[in-house]
Amino acid sequence: MFYPEPIAKLIDAFSRLPGVGPKTAGRLAFHVLRMKEDDVLDFAKSLVSVKRNLHYCSVCCNITDVDPCRVCQDKSRDASVICVVQEPKDLVALERMKEFNGYYHVLHGAISPMEGIGPDEIRIAELLKRLGDDTVQELILAMNPNVEGEATTMYISRLVKPFGLRVTRIAHGLPVGGDLEYADEVTLSKALEGRRELS
Amino acid sequence: MFYPEPIAKLIDAFSRLPGVGPKTAGRLAFHVLRMKEDDVLDFAKSLVSVKRNLHYCSVCCNITDVDPCRVCQDKSRDASVICVVQEPKDLVALERMKEFNGYYHVLHGAISPMEGIGPDEIRIAELLKRLGDDTVQELILAMNPNVEGEATTMYISRLVKPFGLRVTRIAHGLPVGGDLEYADEVTLSKALEGRRELS
Repeated sequence: MFYPEPIAKLIDAFSRLPGVGPKTAGRLAFHVLRMKEDDVLDFAKSLVSVKRNLHYCSVCCNITDVDPCRVCQDKSRDASVICVVQEPKDLVALERMKEFNGYYHVLHGAISPMEGIGPDEIRIAELLKRLGDDTVQELILAMNPNVEGEATTMYISRLVKPFGLRVTRIAHGLPVGGDLEYADEVTLSKALEGRRELS
Repeated sequence: MFYPEPIAKLIDAFSRLPGVGPKTAGRLAFHVLRMKEDDVLDFAKSLVSVKRNLHYCSVCCNITDVDPCRVCQDKSRDASVICVVQEPKDLVALERMKEFNGYYHVLHGAISPMEGIGPDEIRIAELLKRLGDDTVQELILAMNPNVEGEATTMYISRLVKPFGLRVTRIAHGLPVGGDLEYADEVTLSKALEGRRELS
């Protein structure tokens, strides 16, 4: 209103980000005004680059700039295990632990009837395709420990029953209601150790 | 490290912003990934536009996309009063009050020997130029109520003494140690009312 249009627009853009209110947005916009032009250009480029250069891996559906992604390209991993996670951030959290040596599958969400997200909205079909041959022997379900994650775990475990795989879930060592992404390495490691077969 | 390069770069760019830690930066970057491409392009454009299309007003030194700025162009204002503020955000805070009808001067900082900011680093010379003719009769100093603002107030009030102006300061109705930008309209209005002549 009282700001010149370019900065008003930037404040508006910042305030659309999650957790950024109008005052924080103003502070960020004025910070940008004081940044070096090259740094601002880099920032702008990296914004666009994320949208233009990132795609989904044709194997595991993780976000990647090469296809297949770096994890799927890594032949030293154990092809008999696939760990299913909700989000790319969850994969990163598990990788940070440096203990899991199988492959991943990223669902990009969880089943949530409340939000109108059914099994077709997340990458379950792509997961089933990967179970076609006999390579995969264990499926580790590492959903977030909340209602949606639970629903997704149950749905997938029933769906893949005909494949005769070992289907496990990471243990409820994670604090219920929390986010997998923020769990520390030890908790994650304990959760992976304590996984149990779905009856 | 585990993220594909484009998103790692964006996380890095976000985490350089003030008050944004690595986890918030990650959340923001993944939010961008889920935004519509057009919205991301707009965001990137507004970032660059702030650097490229905003300049300093040749009269009051406020940031503006037109020169002189919209306030300085407004002939209905009282040319006999100039209100001196530290930052463009302070000007916006005063404008929001809708009570002040004079012109402004934006210093872009305050004198701070601790940070090596002397009178030459802020827009004091530009202010003196505006006092050359007899149009301006009162100078209202509206600095932040802290050590730097105080130093700037005293410096300017002594500097402009030869011009024979009425030099006032907004009252200390503002909570000391706070930021002018965040004061509510009533407090600002009281502060403006209670201004007193510097001896």
